[in-house]
Amino acid sequence: MFEHQRHKPLRTLAQPRELVVVCAPLRSNINLSRIARAASCCGVERIVCTGRAKLDRRIARDGAETLTIEVHRTLPPVLAQMRTEGYRLVGLEQTTDSCDLHQYRFERKTALVLGNERTGLTPDLLQLLDDVVEIPVWGMPFSYNVATATAMTLYEYCRQYPNG
Amino acid sequence: MFEHQRHKPLRTLAQPRELVVVCAPLRSNINLSRIARAASCCGVERIVCTGRAKLDRRIARDGAETLTIEVHRTLPPVLAQMRTEGYRLVGLEQTTDSCDLHQYRFERKTALVLGNERTGLTPDLLQLLDDVVEIPVWGMPFSYNVATATAMTLYEYCRQYPNG
Repeated sequence: MFEHQRHKPLRTLAQPRELVVVCAPLRSNINLSRIARAASCCGVERIVCTGRAKLDRRIARDGAETLTIEVHRTLPPVLAQMRTEGYRLVGLEQTTDSCDLHQYRFERKTALVLGNERTGLTPDLLQLLDDVVEIPVWGMPFSYNVATATAMTLYEYCRQYPNG
Repeated sequence: MFEHQRHKPLRTLAQPRELVVVCAPLRSNINLSRIARAASCCGVERIVCTGRAKLDRRIARDGAETLTIEVHRTLPPVLAQMRTEGYRLVGLEQTTDSCDLHQYRFERKTALVLGNERTGLTPDLLQLLDDVVEIPVWGMPFSYNVATATAMTLYEYCRQYPNG
């Protein structure tokens, strides 16, 4: 009945993904690389990073070649620029005013902003955002790993925009 | 406006999660440990593993303590037993007959069966399953990492059963 199919043909998008992943300086380039592979699989074309960002190709796989990776010194100027280009700036974080990802309706043109594994999204970044989404947590250790949470959020965005 | 909240109180479930994560022998205990942390955050209580399964507590975090981890020699007898207990056996794999996760409606009582990173779900396991779900892929490298795909699937199940 079920037969494993390796390298099944990719789904096609009716238009390019207008989702950009934006990373505050992460502690771990392993997390960054996991995020890059997942984003590439989702058809994302651009990742904006900061700090000592460097992809591990054994983890990011083709994501390391297919994605445009931009490394910036700080995020506020990039976010300001993206806002003028019409992106909605959406953080992924547990905050006082986050929307539940289950209920959140993404705009097509979204910059998904991810925080550091330990410090999360810092106040200077949070104040620049339009919305913050969070994923419900029912058990310990209180929060998802950043790459895990990003995978869930990419999934939800793509569920809302299966054709781009 | 947005203030980071560390260790926000957990969501409560109206009933225990009837989702069990079942892993074929994985190559990497890092992937297993990532899956354990995500599952624990989702309120999952039980993981069934095979092979040389061993959690890395730095990655699984509290999942290593909160989850019941069962290690079996092979999966077929466990899956047969779970079927008699009323679990729907749902594989996560790209196959000839998979349902798109975006459209799939989970039964509450589900065993989510994960395959090996390289070989995926083998024919002897696939033939024991009721359904197989797959997550759309729009870009290279053709498939998600197993822990990433599991995170997305856990998210979708929890979206359908936010209260357990």
